[in-house]
Amino acid sequence: MFESVGVLGATGAVGRIILKLLEEREFPAKSVRLFASARSAGTTVPFRGVDVTIEELTHDCFEGLELVIASTPDDTAAEYLPSAVKAGAIVIDESGYWRMHEDVALVVPEINPEAALNACGIIASPNCSTTQMVLALKALHDHSPVKRVIVSTYQATSGAGVQGNADLWDGSKAYLANENYEYKVFAHPIAFNAIPQIGSEKEEGYTSEELKMVYETRKILGVPDMAINATCVRIPVANCHSESITVETEEPISPEKARELFSQFPGITVIDDTAHGQYPLPSQCSGSDEVFIGRIRKDLSHPNGLSFWCVSDNLRKGAATNAVQIAELLAAHRETAKT
Amino acid sequence: MFESVGVLGATGAVGRIILKLLEEREFPAKSVRLFASARSAGTTVPFRGVDVTIEELTHDCFEGLELVIASTPDDTAAEYLPSAVKAGAIVIDESGYWRMHEDVALVVPEINPEAALNACGIIASPNCSTTQMVLALKALHDHSPVKRVIVSTYQATSGAGVQGNADLWDGSKAYLANENYEYKVFAHPIAFNAIPQIGSEKEEGYTSEELKMVYETRKILGVPDMAINATCVRIPVANCHSESITVETEEPISPEKARELFSQFPGITVIDDTAHGQYPLPSQCSGSDEVFIGRIRKDLSHPNGLSFWCVSDNLRKGAATNAVQIAELLAAHRETAKT
Repeated sequence: MFESVGVLGATGAVGRIILKLLEEREFPAKSVRLFASARSAGTTVPFRGVDVTIEELTHDCFEGLELVIASTPDDTAAEYLPSAVKAGAIVIDESGYWRMHEDVALVVPEINPEAALNACGIIASPNCSTTQMVLALKALHDHSPVKRVIVSTYQATSGAGVQGNADLWDGSKAYLANENYEYKVFAHPIAFNAIPQIGSEKEEGYTSEELKMVYETRKILGVPDMAINATCVRIPVANCHSESITVETEEPISPEKARELFSQFPGITVIDDTAHGQYPLPSQCSGSDEVFIGRIRKDLSHPNGLSFWCVSDNLRKGAATNAVQIAELLAAHRETAKT
Repeated sequence: MFESVGVLGATGAVGRIILKLLEEREFPAKSVRLFASARSAGTTVPFRGVDVTIEELTHDCFEGLELVIASTPDDTAAEYLPSAVKAGAIVIDESGYWRMHEDVALVVPEINPEAALNACGIIASPNCSTTQMVLALKALHDHSPVKRVIVSTYQATSGAGVQGNADLWDGSKAYLANENYEYKVFAHPIAFNAIPQIGSEKEEGYTSEELKMVYETRKILGVPDMAINATCVRIPVANCHSESITVETEEPISPEKARELFSQFPGITVIDDTAHGQYPLPSQCSGSDEVFIGRIRKDLSHPNGLSFWCVSDNLRKGAATNAVQIAELLAAHRETAKT
């Protein structure tokens, strides 16, 4: 049980789901305070049966909080989270800013819970496109080490926040009505299009989103030199990221064995019957906390290769669910420590 | 100059573009006769300034034709094209039926024109997803042999014919209006979704579309054991297929060198400036006969690896343009042979 928990970015796309999950999963917190930027401060949000007033995020707002779950842009996380730590809170951060810091734990509870329990200060939740992939990789990696990963993503507009989806809906309506629409968050029209850039360009022609998949996966799995190649693409899907993943493992893993390993791994559901048109679809996986895997087959181009298709709700397991699961892990550990 | 040319499937999505290209490119044919199924026979189509009546496709309709360009379903091609060959015509076939037959040439004019010139009987044009990829591969392969290919596709609904696009538009409108829509050609809703199956399931969990990319590429490049792994996915884009391609070559090819090789190869246009948001987009490549390549970068997971993004109009270079280019090749060869 936590006496006092703060949720930062409570009005954002992920923040809203965090609140829903804290309610649904009956998270053990006596009081929950909600914070957002000055723009949203003063408005109210229904939570656990009462209207909670959103407080303004300031450097002094963290006094008395034991746990903070933050879903904010990178620059906000960079500026404010050290103040939360200084005030004595454990912080679970959804942003990209702290993930790769040496002192920050980067945690997927099914994979490296011990990193969260040993952390002091900030615990980071991985990028949405990383989380679902790393869960799939871990299921294989425990059986035979993953040596190389090649992934191409099919990412949803909700990954760009509330306005990302507004762009998809309004842009699509305008396109179908033969009208112009000025996109707010996407550099190119996303309606009926595919954009092979997510984030800004970084080293060697890769984008920030692609390098997150490389560096975060290595850190979570604890394999600093794992060979990973990512291509991240935005497509006109509102919610759920899909990924076409090909891996090479030290020893070959048959599709049958992989199906077994995935099925037994916590948080993964296998849907795999191509002959009958059964495989994960973004339209069917939205709203679920699971990572879904299908199209599991031998990589025809490598004796130790395996290919599969992986879909997950990027706002849930890719963000809110993973953060709340980390919080639950900390809460359970407190109870155990007490007894 | 051909005395008499027949176009089969003249009212289909690809057939219409074949007629447009024959007009635009002033294809040297004295007379052009148009054929379709009984359903369309009797209707007229404007071509080179006159209304041409569509004739019914029968086994006896090919008499006197020197060249036939056919864009029909596989079963139609299987049944009728031998009759065209028997009647003495050279046949250029867009369907999938004859491509892998030992006696049939599978031709991309920029790659293996000699195969078309040596052919008697049927010359096949490759599957749309193959054509754009194999052109890119050939540009690299001539410099250093391609040893392995891993490709994930982002394919447009026009690949499923006129009704494929009707499903996309009507399905999207219905979705946005919160109404139901019964899809005619797709097994799952394609509006705001991604479907990781194109064609039927074949060997080892691969789909027919994926195996076409494997077998056709090997045949066109003349490398029967090239290691190729494909994942084919339909996305809600109306026209132009996109492909995320990773290759391993015998010797490493730097991104700079690859850019040069692609730029110099006939039929390829490079658009590659990620820092300024410049890369091929389906929305911008539609209506062009070129294959567009961008996001050219070193594969971070392999010393001899290279990754890039490849977009092309699947109805044009992926189908109609390639067929008409083969026809032009034959016409030019006739002129040369005469002199």
